[in-house]
Amino acid sequence: MVANTQIIFSKIPTTWPVIGEHITVNKTDFDLDAPLADGEFILKTLVLSVDPYMRGRMRDPTIVSYVPPFLVDEPMSGHTMKEVVKSKSSLFKEGDYVYGLGTHEEYAKLNDELAKAYGLVLRNEPKTNGIPVSNYVGILGMPGMTAYVGLYKIGELKEGETIYISAGKVKKRTSGAVGQVAGQIAKAQGLRVIGSAGTDEKVAHLKEIGFDGAFNYKTEDTDQKLTELCPDGIDVYFENVGGKMLEVVLQHINFFGRIIACGMISQYNLAESEKVGGLMTIVARSIRFQGYIVSNSPEMEPQFLKDVTQMILDKKIKYQETHTHGIENTPEALLDVLNGKNFGKQVVHA
Amino acid sequence: MVANTQIIFSKIPTTWPVIGEHITVNKTDFDLDAPLADGEFILKTLVLSVDPYMRGRMRDPTIVSYVPPFLVDEPMSGHTMKEVVKSKSSLFKEGDYVYGLGTHEEYAKLNDELAKAYGLVLRNEPKTNGIPVSNYVGILGMPGMTAYVGLYKIGELKEGETIYISAGKVKKRTSGAVGQVAGQIAKAQGLRVIGSAGTDEKVAHLKEIGFDGAFNYKTEDTDQKLTELCPDGIDVYFENVGGKMLEVVLQHINFFGRIIACGMISQYNLAESEKVGGLMTIVARSIRFQGYIVSNSPEMEPQFLKDVTQMILDKKIKYQETHTHGIENTPEALLDVLNGKNFGKQVVHA
Repeated sequence: MVANTQIIFSKIPTTWPVIGEHITVNKTDFDLDAPLADGEFILKTLVLSVDPYMRGRMRDPTIVSYVPPFLVDEPMSGHTMKEVVKSKSSLFKEGDYVYGLGTHEEYAKLNDELAKAYGLVLRNEPKTNGIPVSNYVGILGMPGMTAYVGLYKIGELKEGETIYISAGKVKKRTSGAVGQVAGQIAKAQGLRVIGSAGTDEKVAHLKEIGFDGAFNYKTEDTDQKLTELCPDGIDVYFENVGGKMLEVVLQHINFFGRIIACGMISQYNLAESEKVGGLMTIVARSIRFQGYIVSNSPEMEPQFLKDVTQMILDKKIKYQETHTHGIENTPEALLDVLNGKNFGKQVVHA
Repeated sequence: MVANTQIIFSKIPTTWPVIGEHITVNKTDFDLDAPLADGEFILKTLVLSVDPYMRGRMRDPTIVSYVPPFLVDEPMSGHTMKEVVKSKSSLFKEGDYVYGLGTHEEYAKLNDELAKAYGLVLRNEPKTNGIPVSNYVGILGMPGMTAYVGLYKIGELKEGETIYISAGKVKKRTSGAVGQVAGQIAKAQGLRVIGSAGTDEKVAHLKEIGFDGAFNYKTEDTDQKLTELCPDGIDVYFENVGGKMLEVVLQHINFFGRIIACGMISQYNLAESEKVGGLMTIVARSIRFQGYIVSNSPEMEPQFLKDVTQMILDKKIKYQETHTHGIENTPEALLDVLNGKNFGKQVVHA
């Protein structure tokens, strides 16, 4: 028997989730020595990712959305790197690293059928390539791939163009993890990269990682800063949809501009969406405004991993992570993300 | 000498154009017998198209837009079918029919260089195929091609899907010419086609030409009618951007839906655009919302002509035109179009 700490979704919050009420930490036991049936294996969590979209999963399960709801009294889940500690699986052997949707608990028993259903895949590269395991739930995981898919599926990047990357006007939508990757990939493709963020510290960081310009949308005037920083207009806009920010960007967007409407946004914001004017610009300037959800583009994953791994190995990309240690601190880490307190990608080491 | 009636843009209107003030009819003479230099030729207008977008050209020429402004004291212009009556051109010989942007006057002298600049092309097919010349400025001209380009460039039509074609909420945006073609092409591709229009007579016409359903958006509730007529949701929405109609459609649109933002809209409506809520659906349902201007897709013209000519010859498409006779009646015809009084495509026979 080993101790097994689990993060349990214990109650559906109506507004802000409260630790101990809506999210609870459960300590239980796990029998590592119980015999495994054919196809079964045991995973131990190495790192897990906490992301803004998780708030959208903490909902009444009868509400249909693009991400499945968390189930009350069950462990929460998300993208994880886990290690196989025992195996009678035909897919994974002992010692393998596995990436995919996994439960927020130290140990879990699965079988090959479930592994396929969850889309778990072998990810042994960090054992030998020197890249931290935590990168595999961030820049090399779903957030990095969200940036990559948006840029290459919708962005139609052309050298010399200007891309503007907004961290979003609403805190809960902040996705620094995606934005910083998107900006650096675009930079490597020869674009002029402009960003905005909600604190001076974050703005400084964007400049540090190579953005050609950045501003604080809370203390500076967006229209004026875009005029100044994007003198030739905006060709590509990477955003978390909507509101006043979009309306201002539409005034700066060039003919044939692309608006990448990023797929990490929380569905729960739908009800409170701000109205947007000036949409006729979409016709008048032949704009493509397209939403996407990263999980619908699995065919792009091999190329994404190849390209971004190489960028990391060549030190062509800088990536900021906030590390939390101890799976029992996952609830606090999640609340920090929802509050926009995290700096770069928030990960938890189990 | 022959008489030459011209339609002159005489003053920039601030609101509604007034005949005799902003648009005037000018009678002048044209010397058919004056010798032509090499490359020169004389065109006689057969039919001309009047379209809603022309209001956008009646503006202060310092305002930049996707269509060039009309120049004060010069003839207005638009898509025309003209006949070559004299020629020293290397492009066109006497008797040829020519399609493209042409002036609203009975006779005009051009040369090969101008012909290339205006994109004039040979269009002799109606001399032999039995299709009326007027169709070549409508279903086989810019309006038809607008429908075709939108459907094939953005629509990604799939058999069994539902397309909703809105005539637009604002009268000036009404483009029955495009909508009726779009609907019938989509129908031929195996889609379920639903339309809306602003009068019961137009609604009846949509059903008559094969729409699976249609409603009057002025007298019926759009949300309720879309629920009823599109029980499986909307996959493709063909619209003249914006406003409340778009907001309602977003509530009915399916995952991976396409919104074809049609390129015939008048720029002058930009200032008064209604704000639109619920745009997060674009992310949540991975919507592609794309604007286009038909003149940017000349590469699609040969296939468009081939496909739609065949549909006409096979009687697989019905096409309504409103015919005005006499070029001097062009101003009234244009005002009818801007007022939404025309039924189907408005053409003027010179």
